[in-house]
Amino acid sequence: MSEINSAPTMKDVAREAGVALGTVSKVINGIPVGESYRVRVEEAVAKLNYRVNSYAKGLKTNKTFTVAVMVPNLISPFFAKLVNCINKALTARRHRMLLYATDYDPTQEQEYVILAEQQKVDGIICLSYNPDLKVSENLPLVSIDRYFGAHIPCVASDNYGGGRMAAEKLVENGCRSLAFMRIGSRLTNEPNKRKEGFISACEAMDVPYTLKIVDDGTPYSAFEDFLNEHFHEGKLDFDGIFCVTDTLAYQILGSLRKMGVRVPEDVQLIGFDGVRSFGDLDLFCSTIVQPLDEIAETCVNLVLEKGQTSAPSLICLPVHYACGGTTKE
Amino acid sequence: MSEINSAPTMKDVAREAGVALGTVSKVINGIPVGESYRVRVEEAVAKLNYRVNSYAKGLKTNKTFTVAVMVPNLISPFFAKLVNCINKALTARRHRMLLYATDYDPTQEQEYVILAEQQKVDGIICLSYNPDLKVSENLPLVSIDRYFGAHIPCVASDNYGGGRMAAEKLVENGCRSLAFMRIGSRLTNEPNKRKEGFISACEAMDVPYTLKIVDDGTPYSAFEDFLNEHFHEGKLDFDGIFCVTDTLAYQILGSLRKMGVRVPEDVQLIGFDGVRSFGDLDLFCSTIVQPLDEIAETCVNLVLEKGQTSAPSLICLPVHYACGGTTKE
Repeated sequence: MSEINSAPTMKDVAREAGVALGTVSKVINGIPVGESYRVRVEEAVAKLNYRVNSYAKGLKTNKTFTVAVMVPNLISPFFAKLVNCINKALTARRHRMLLYATDYDPTQEQEYVILAEQQKVDGIICLSYNPDLKVSENLPLVSIDRYFGAHIPCVASDNYGGGRMAAEKLVENGCRSLAFMRIGSRLTNEPNKRKEGFISACEAMDVPYTLKIVDDGTPYSAFEDFLNEHFHEGKLDFDGIFCVTDTLAYQILGSLRKMGVRVPEDVQLIGFDGVRSFGDLDLFCSTIVQPLDEIAETCVNLVLEKGQTSAPSLICLPVHYACGGTTKE
Repeated sequence: MSEINSAPTMKDVAREAGVALGTVSKVINGIPVGESYRVRVEEAVAKLNYRVNSYAKGLKTNKTFTVAVMVPNLISPFFAKLVNCINKALTARRHRMLLYATDYDPTQEQEYVILAEQQKVDGIICLSYNPDLKVSENLPLVSIDRYFGAHIPCVASDNYGGGRMAAEKLVENGCRSLAFMRIGSRLTNEPNKRKEGFISACEAMDVPYTLKIVDDGTPYSAFEDFLNEHFHEGKLDFDGIFCVTDTLAYQILGSLRKMGVRVPEDVQLIGFDGVRSFGDLDLFCSTIVQPLDEIAETCVNLVLEKGQTSAPSLICLPVHYACGGTTKE
């Protein structure tokens, strides 16, 4: 590793180029100057390896090319991939990402918003668990999965359509009685619509269904109890299961194997998210895939264009089904 | 969601508190003033919801409480968990994280370092694939897994010890002939020592071993060919395999199952990293676990304390073995 000497200033550039300080400033800020001046300044910048002080620039232009991204954590492969996609979309637009991991804590989320304001970020993209989050009206905010109101754009997968798709796929694959399982936050959010879509499809197809819905923090054994209650003479009461996430589907798959239930022969299982082992290897289960690249692109476009009154309040992006071995096809 | 009106200035705080601007400045910067003045300023700050402009502060104090973290991506669960741990360690010290994902591209890594300098970060923690990375000598840098030289602290797992541990564990579990498989960068880096530790333990125990080592970018089928070459009359030539990562071990496990080789009955398999499905559920295989929390803590302490001449050039943190079902114990 080689090293660069301590940072040169704009004055050093002016001296090296033999021009006035104001000329250097113009060139750096893209204001036209005579061609020969521009060339001399650019050569001096290159020679001295001059770097713009973005703090000084941030004070002047009121723009920092920095966007704060707030998610619960990076441990969940869904959040990790989402942040990876947002980072790519920001980088492609020459913006930087300040990352906040909130650990689902509403107080910490509010503190991070204050930090982001201090940092003078150009906007915030958040996947928040704080329905009362307070954000300055001057700071562009785009929300993922949580609808805050008409003035804050919310970007999500088509969760309702995905829930319908799961029920329809199970029935198409021969299932005659379905179950839906969910563990999650009690707060209203877009992913809750998975259940509503699932129920609406079951009712439209006139297929019987059972629900098992528990709050975050409930021990996983609640699902094992539910499975056992519906297990008679080596058979489950249902032959198709839709789980609200791949994480839950993966756990249910483990329980079914322990009970001696064959998947997909006896019971077919669909999750939601579309995450893969090691990021890009196998799916953990058959699943409804969220379009994370498109969600990220949409969020970044919205946060950077904010101020346009025409911004929609909710954008739902299309999901698709992928067979991951826990369904017949 | 409620909203806050546009940002008040330090002047507004002085007016509200009925004190001079200089008094407000002192209180905000922690310089002692009379108790009654301090209380009045703090009340005005709270009432007006005043936020320090960190860009103005950054210009003055030459400190931004921001650390840049550079990793190839967040798709790999190993990198995602590492970044999650670093973020936690920075937050605990009231520092922010600027995240750069480099996609293994040395040019992009160099560009990010320039960006980080412009952003006036307090330091960089990087997991770099650019052995020629140029960084200003004024900018504290801590490297993970790549040794740049005596003046740049490098933090890594005890990769050599982990390689030894894998070989010893396989032999302890009854294996009599071992194989080592690796796909990775040709660049010298700390994880390469896994192989050296493995070989040294095999030689010390006088156990025969085979190596299969290919460069990044080689198709996975190279490993299937290797397995087939060593497969005679339904049996492999070796009964213990150490893979350089859990990712590779997971892929090898799939190949062995397809070949009808039973794991762990016929062959035992150990990976390296200790990543878990969905972040905190099952291990993918038996593995040598990297101490990511400790690596993160160490990096953050080093980057924030940089300048102390006593900083070591290499810190290797202890790994441990965990059985994940692909070994007998």
